[in-house]
Amino acid sequence: MSKPVAPTTPVVRAPVDLDGFAAIVGARNVITAAADMEPFLREARDLYRGVARAVVKPGSTGEVAAVVRHARALGLAVVPQGGNTGLVGGQIPGAESDAIVLSLARMDRVREIDPLTDTMTVEAGMTLLKAQELAEQADRLFPLSLASEGSCTIGGNIATNAGGTAVLAYGNTRDLVLGLEVVLADGRVWNGLNKLRKDNTGYDLKDLFVGSEGTLGVVTAAVLKLFPRPRSRATAFCAVASPEAALALLMLAKKQAGSALTTFELVPRIGVEFVTRHIPGARDPLSDVSPWYVLLELSSPAESGLDEMLEALLGEAIEQGVVADAAIAASLDQRHAFWTLREALSEVQKLEGGSIKHDVSVPVALVPQFLEEAVACVSGMVPGCRPVPFGHMGDGNIHFNVSQPEGADRDAFLGLWDAMNEKVHAIVTRLGGSISAEHGVGRLKRDLLPAVKDPVALDLMRAIKRAIDPEGLLNPGAVL
Amino acid sequence: MSKPVAPTTPVVRAPVDLDGFAAIVGARNVITAAADMEPFLREARDLYRGVARAVVKPGSTGEVAAVVRHARALGLAVVPQGGNTGLVGGQIPGAESDAIVLSLARMDRVREIDPLTDTMTVEAGMTLLKAQELAEQADRLFPLSLASEGSCTIGGNIATNAGGTAVLAYGNTRDLVLGLEVVLADGRVWNGLNKLRKDNTGYDLKDLFVGSEGTLGVVTAAVLKLFPRPRSRATAFCAVASPEAALALLMLAKKQAGSALTTFELVPRIGVEFVTRHIPGARDPLSDVSPWYVLLELSSPAESGLDEMLEALLGEAIEQGVVADAAIAASLDQRHAFWTLREALSEVQKLEGGSIKHDVSVPVALVPQFLEEAVACVSGMVPGCRPVPFGHMGDGNIHFNVSQPEGADRDAFLGLWDAMNEKVHAIVTRLGGSISAEHGVGRLKRDLLPAVKDPVALDLMRAIKRAIDPEGLLNPGAVL
Repeated sequence: MSKPVAPTTPVVRAPVDLDGFAAIVGARNVITAAADMEPFLREARDLYRGVARAVVKPGSTGEVAAVVRHARALGLAVVPQGGNTGLVGGQIPGAESDAIVLSLARMDRVREIDPLTDTMTVEAGMTLLKAQELAEQADRLFPLSLASEGSCTIGGNIATNAGGTAVLAYGNTRDLVLGLEVVLADGRVWNGLNKLRKDNTGYDLKDLFVGSEGTLGVVTAAVLKLFPRPRSRATAFCAVASPEAALALLMLAKKQAGSALTTFELVPRIGVEFVTRHIPGARDPLSDVSPWYVLLELSSPAESGLDEMLEALLGEAIEQGVVADAAIAASLDQRHAFWTLREALSEVQKLEGGSIKHDVSVPVALVPQFLEEAVACVSGMVPGCRPVPFGHMGDGNIHFNVSQPEGADRDAFLGLWDAMNEKVHAIVTRLGGSISAEHGVGRLKRDLLPAVKDPVALDLMRAIKRAIDPEGLLNPGAVL
Repeated sequence: MSKPVAPTTPVVRAPVDLDGFAAIVGARNVITAAADMEPFLREARDLYRGVARAVVKPGSTGEVAAVVRHARALGLAVVPQGGNTGLVGGQIPGAESDAIVLSLARMDRVREIDPLTDTMTVEAGMTLLKAQELAEQADRLFPLSLASEGSCTIGGNIATNAGGTAVLAYGNTRDLVLGLEVVLADGRVWNGLNKLRKDNTGYDLKDLFVGSEGTLGVVTAAVLKLFPRPRSRATAFCAVASPEAALALLMLAKKQAGSALTTFELVPRIGVEFVTRHIPGARDPLSDVSPWYVLLELSSPAESGLDEMLEALLGEAIEQGVVADAAIAASLDQRHAFWTLREALSEVQKLEGGSIKHDVSVPVALVPQFLEEAVACVSGMVPGCRPVPFGHMGDGNIHFNVSQPEGADRDAFLGLWDAMNEKVHAIVTRLGGSISAEHGVGRLKRDLLPAVKDPVALDLMRAIKRAIDPEGLLNPGAVL
């Protein structure tokens, strides 16, 4: 369903003392058999097959530190891994390095919930879903939400600065983290489990580790921000004539609803067709066909008032000609049905053949221009291809996925992956955008960075890497 | 009114070629006469008197880069300065270094306003007030707000990660900045004027420079986030029996009002007395005396609905016994009168004699415990002293200011500054707090860091400083 796997070159390496790891974490937590390591060395899209000496599963921060020190003594690189759901190969050791996978899976405990401070301190291996549930039990919201939330982990979310569907209102993962505990490449532990909303005593180390994809340190625990739980929601599925109209609707919604606007997702007509074709029971809630749609949701801790706000907003939008038609969810079932039209988009694309993906962002105002140029570009490249651009318009983040022409040869189409990426990324870069809006760099996009990134920024990144991990022990081959 | 000035040791230095600066910025923008330099070498509290070869005022990013290169060639340190309103001496060159002051004052232009992307790109020397006004002209809000906003600059706000009165709803300065342009110590320019809400292509350099107090680079321009303008506000001045009751009110307000809660400021009785004593026309809006008060404000982009929300909230709070009494502002004049009871607190303390200050934060849940311990501590140290703790309770950030006993000797009292700081900071540190919540480290608190900061964090900060400014050219003596 995606880009073909690069063949892995077999490497023969001299044996090293792996028993030392067992002495730290227990023999049952050191995996060396190829078949047992496989779930840790392959990832969901099968873009990468990793090579490792062992998968080591420490159960505490002290054990993580000891494992890192032992790996360093052996000259082995350390590739931290959470739920192994990353989409850019950052969690899979490359064949070029002699490495262990350090799985945080056993470190899944909650250390503290402090509802008065609105914080929760959890270990890195906790799944995002579990963190969401813990927050809910404390009558709070942990707003990070993404497709893989059942299996991805907080540590991985932090390492990749995960985005998701709630960024418009609550920000990216970095905005949801107050403090970190990190094991450094030399085995020392930085205790930065800060619960403070304000602390100006020096450089912002927290944000340096967030999004560094395991190349600067191993995140072992974090203080997460909690929010009041929304007590009401109002959801609409809106037909708009164009991305320009969607942008006008976004401006109107921000102006009228402010921070109550928590979702603003763009969906193209072809996306609705794919979903209604493949998902049993899914249907288009609007009677007329529209080239574009917006899934718009307001939420509020207040018990009431949102329905009126949404009706006033849509009334104004229709009066201004910004929205052609809209359906308002009258029940929880209807709300789920609207969300399915957005959330099933990745899944249904797999059923329509090969798909070439781009996780990109541009300044919000330039989303319409980007879509126009990118659709023209890929249509010129592959006549009959079916662009399915969708996603977080409120953040300027479009998943610009392109499905193969109907009936075309899948592998031949996917063979154009790099060439199409190059052209689309050129448009993104010209518009001041990012070629990795929310998935990170990992191994997939590392070699693309020099072409799109400010050279001074790359130099600064390299200088920081050298300063913090001078031996290049942590996740070599990722990001830089 | 404050801690006495440390005497400056006169230093005789060999002459250097200052004409090179004039060749870059023009002779009129190089100040060398002692009297003309004085406004740049003293700060508001008169805690520091600086020593510099010259004050150099570049007019463009290219000129900043050239000035930094020339200073480096001469072996002169560079101390960046904005509005010279910093409270910890970070903008004043110490006598120990051979330095120039690099004033960003001439770089005060707006480069772009992009209301569709909700961003504004401005130069570092623009005053905060001007930035607020520009946003308003574009029908947007730039929410950063603090006492010195008429003269402090965006560059200084960024260098110190300024806080202020809107942090509860909108975050600190770092949360309000999307991108930066920075001149590095070697004179290269990092163009990071990113307008993106999502960009995961590498380490978060932006947040490394925000709050680094001019020690890692010279911020020359920034992309600021804009927000919808509030169209309604509802403001209450509430009597609460204790900090615990204030905390309970905070929980209730968050739960019921969510992100509409934009202000939650704690004011002690003595603060109200000071303001009503010294500010003409100021009065206590409540009939009964209360030991503590909360200034609470809701705001929303919606035209209506807030008054009802505030009334419901206060009704519930009174029913629960959390609030003893409350006044709701019925007019803009009343709103300003309520705010005066909070905003005049710093000013009126000056009229009550010497005041020893602490800009500290603790986890929100621990504010009551901190206040109890800190008040007992300073009262034990100086019987009759008058603690006036006030500020941003919603962020856990208390300005723990202590006024001298009535009729006591001012200088003798202020002589206890360091001793009192030490005791109060020990409480703060034990409670997991910060000894500089929003003012930064500068020169004032540099030597306090080793006692309160995780040693691994300090090592990481030093490693980063060496990596980015290996010669120690930028603002030596500040922070580290």
